[in-house]
Amino acid sequence: MILEKTCPRCGAVVEIYRNPFPTTDIIVVRAGRVLLIRRAAPPEGWALPGGFIDYGESAETAARRELEEETSLHARSLSLLGVYSEPGRDPRFHTLTVVYVAEADGEPQAGDDAADARWFSLDQLPREIAFDHRRIIEDAARRIKG
Amino acid sequence: MILEKTCPRCGAVVEIYRNPFPTTDIIVVRAGRVLLIRRAAPPEGWALPGGFIDYGESAETAARRELEEETSLHARSLSLLGVYSEPGRDPRFHTLTVVYVAEADGEPQAGDDAADARWFSLDQLPREIAFDHRRIIEDAARRIKG
Repeated sequence: MILEKTCPRCGAVVEIYRNPFPTTDIIVVRAGRVLLIRRAAPPEGWALPGGFIDYGESAETAARRELEEETSLHARSLSLLGVYSEPGRDPRFHTLTVVYVAEADGEPQAGDDAADARWFSLDQLPREIAFDHRRIIEDAARRIKG
Repeated sequence: MILEKTCPRCGAVVEIYRNPFPTTDIIVVRAGRVLLIRRAAPPEGWALPGGFIDYGESAETAARRELEEETSLHARSLSLLGVYSEPGRDPRFHTLTVVYVAEADGEPQAGDDAADARWFSLDQLPREIAFDHRRIIEDAARRIKG
């Protein structure tokens, strides 16, 4: 798909090839609880720690970086849960997220794009969860139980 | 990362946020053989069928579309093998590929970006394989055997 962007100087149309934006989200589960952050920017709600994968950065490196920036926790291990890429999953634009299950020690401290970081029981998730993260958490819970 | 592109009319710099390009590759294995295509465009060599994920298209839809365009085969089922996103895996630019193992009936006919489409024994892969596809095929073979 071609995205048209406007030249800031002359207003001409500059054509850019556009692809889904690759992102990563990280599920840390400990003793039946999952770590969520409260988003500081819209769309509001609780969400998995995560964010955009930078050019020149692997998905795994981005996952570790985002977890650390938003919760201060260091991932000890990462294993791939899945890829979620339905066009409507993010109300802002089309993202494709690579989701990892991570193990991490210590207690979270919110930072960067996170206004808060807390543990939630898998049986009692908050009502307002952004994107398709409720479905992703349920998929992870099934895998952990199974 | 910010990519600078030049306005075609006035030559001003237009700044664009740049992310890795999401792609998909498809592994069809049948009776100990894997389906590869010979690339019509550089980088040359044999490769898994695959290509860019379009904006507005899920990874699974892109995988089915690319397999059909390049080999004429229809994927009966898809299961996620892994995500490969090391920055150096494509010599042209940074891609992140979502790899599926697919089942498909019938015999391939090369089309679109594929100059040829053939089955190769997993024990006797061609010497020239593009990107990190040899490693991906080996990972898939291990999973199928295990």
